[in-house]
Formats: sequence, C-alpha cells, structure tokens
Amino acid sequence: MFEAIKGRRSVRKYKTEPVDREIVKKLLDAARWAPSGGNIQPWLFIVIDDPKVLDVIRKISPGYFGEAPLAILVCSNKERAYKVGGALGRDYLTVADCAMAVQNMLLAAYALGLGTCVVKSFSHTAIKEVLAIPEGIEPELLVIVGHPNQTSRPPPRIPMNEIVHLNKYGEKFPGLEG
Amino acid sequence: MFEAIKGRRSVRKYKTEPVDREIVKKLLDAARWAPSGGNIQPWLFIVIDDPKVLDVIRKISPGYFGEAPLAILVCSNKERAYKVGGALGRDYLTVADCAMAVQNMLLAAYALGLGTCVVKSFSHTAIKEVLAIPEGIEPELLVIVGHPNQTSRPPPRIPMNEIVHLNKYGEKFPGLEG
Repeated sequence: MFEAIKGRRSVRKYKTEPVDREIVKKLLDAARWAPSGGNIQPWLFIVIDDPKVLDVIRKISPGYFGEAPLAILVCSNKERAYKVGGALGRDYLTVADCAMAVQNMLLAAYALGLGTCVVKSFSHTAIKEVLAIPEGIEPELLVIVGHPNQTSRPPPRIPMNEIVHLNKYGEKFPGLEG
Repeated sequence: MFEAIKGRRSVRKYKTEPVDREIVKKLLDAARWAPSGGNIQPWLFIVIDDPKVLDVIRKISPGYFGEAPLAILVCSNKERAYKVGGALGRDYLTVADCAMAVQNMLLAAYALGLGTCVVKSFSHTAIKEVLAIPEGIEPELLVIVGHPNQTSRPPPRIPMNEIVHLNKYGEKFPGLEG
C-alpha cells in the first residue's frame, strides 16, 4: 500500500499499446468504492478509447500529455447529488467524492503496471459538447491512462514540519523532518 | 491494493485506545504523496489528539461519530494555491488535491488496522476559531481515526452499467454488471 502511494507518479509519456478493457473495468470498480458523503455516489465515468474522440479531447485539454491511448472523464451527477444532498451535496461534496474516486483509480492503475496523469485543465464547454454530456452532469477531472514510457523522479515535497500542526494552528508536531 | 480499496469502510464506532503518534506520521506521509496540480501541494494538516480539543470539535461537527481519539483536519492553503495556480488553483484544485490526500490517508489507515471516517459537516467558522486558523487557510475535510469497534457491511453501490459510458454520454460499455 505505502509502496503504491509513494511510488505512483504522474506519467507524461506513454507507449501506443492500448489498455485492455478488462483492465479498464478494474479501474472503474476501484473508483466506485471510494467513500461518498451520504452514500450519494455522485460519480459518472466516460471511458474514451476511440482514437478519433481522443484526438479531439487532446486538442481541448492543454494538460493532456503524450499519446495515452485511454482517458477516463470523471463527471459528477449534480442532479442526483442535489436530490440527496442539497446545495452542499451539489456544490462541494461532488468534487471531493470524485477526487477520492480518482485517487483509487490512480493507485489501482499503478498496481496493474499502468501510468496515469490527472488533467484538470480542459475546456468544460468543449468537452461537454464533444461527448454529448447533458445538463446536470459536470465534468470534474480527466484521467489519462496508458503503459508508461518513462520513469520519473519523485517531485519535491514540502517538509512535513511546514504542513503539520498539533491541536492548534501554529503548534509544532514533535519529531517531524524539517 | 484492491483488497484495501474494497475493504475500507467508514467506521462510526471506535475503541478509546489512542492512536500512536508514529502511526499518525505515517498517515500524514501517505497524504502528502497524493498528486497535486502544478505540484502546489495546497494541503495543511492539523492533528487533534488533545481530548479537550476533541470534545469541542465533536460539538461543532454533527458528522463526528463515536469516540474516535484522533481527528486530522485537512485544510487548504488558499494563499499558496492562489500564488501558484491563480483563481482556478485557489477555488477548485485545492479541494480535489486535499480529497486525494484524504483518500491516501484512509487507505494507509486501513492497511495499518485503523478505522476512519471522513466528516464533511462541521461548522467552518467555529472550527477556525477553536483551532486559531488564520485567514488564507480553509478547512476542507475532517478525518476521524481510531481503532475500530465494529465491522460494517459494504454500503450498496450503484451498478456499473448505470455509471459508465463509452466514448460518448449514453453509449454502453459492453459487458458490465447491471
């Protein structure tokens, strides 16, 4: 578990080799077991593996690197979230729940030898049009997936003692690396 | 990995036994290895294990169940996020990044035999006051942690074929359970 959490990297170079759909199912299954406030499960996944559609998605997503042969658009079902969770459910919890589902997907992909990258910069209007996404469904995060063609160094992390406080803001947690 | 992803549950009954601070460090370390847009790492963690502070937190958090001896408030550093990522960074990416950090923490806790529950319903104003959180730091999610005193059944999940689409909204992904 810790190896996966620390070993996972955002991959930006991929082989052209496609990702088997049985593997895709495993990623989706991992995603949907994320926790969900009020068990709303606001997520909805659009799997994109048609090269023509991927070409269009790439053009409207500045963060889409390389030739990843698969993308999974994680959307929130705002309508369902609002029905169950009111305005808080619709506006806030959906983002958090979808992001936790994405993290499951990234870790599952890593465990299966795949590379991933979360893309947040894409045109929401354009992607809704390309994928015929109706009102009430909102694209949240795009996850690109493929067989990695690079090994990346870990990105630097802010030292623990700068981001951890104890019992009150500003109080030190003893014994953390600086 | 898959066992942890599928086996993890929201725990609402805890033993009073405290959580060792060495274990807390491992949870925080897992959290900070979540991916972060632009490597902003907008997260900031306030560990709460002082029983008096926990008592106050419980009173202002309707979602805080049971007697969990530890809570970790995950905040976003809106100021740092804005400096690096502009308005998108401040308003959206911080929530997603913090949620992914939380999911790492939940899975790490599960791997270490601990129970967790994500609490989203708490008074933001009150918690900022209690923990002396300054402007520019925003509480996002509260994670309660402890030794579980229950076994829970998996909550029902929406069938895969209702949440997965292929290459376009409304198109079926073949072979999914209904």
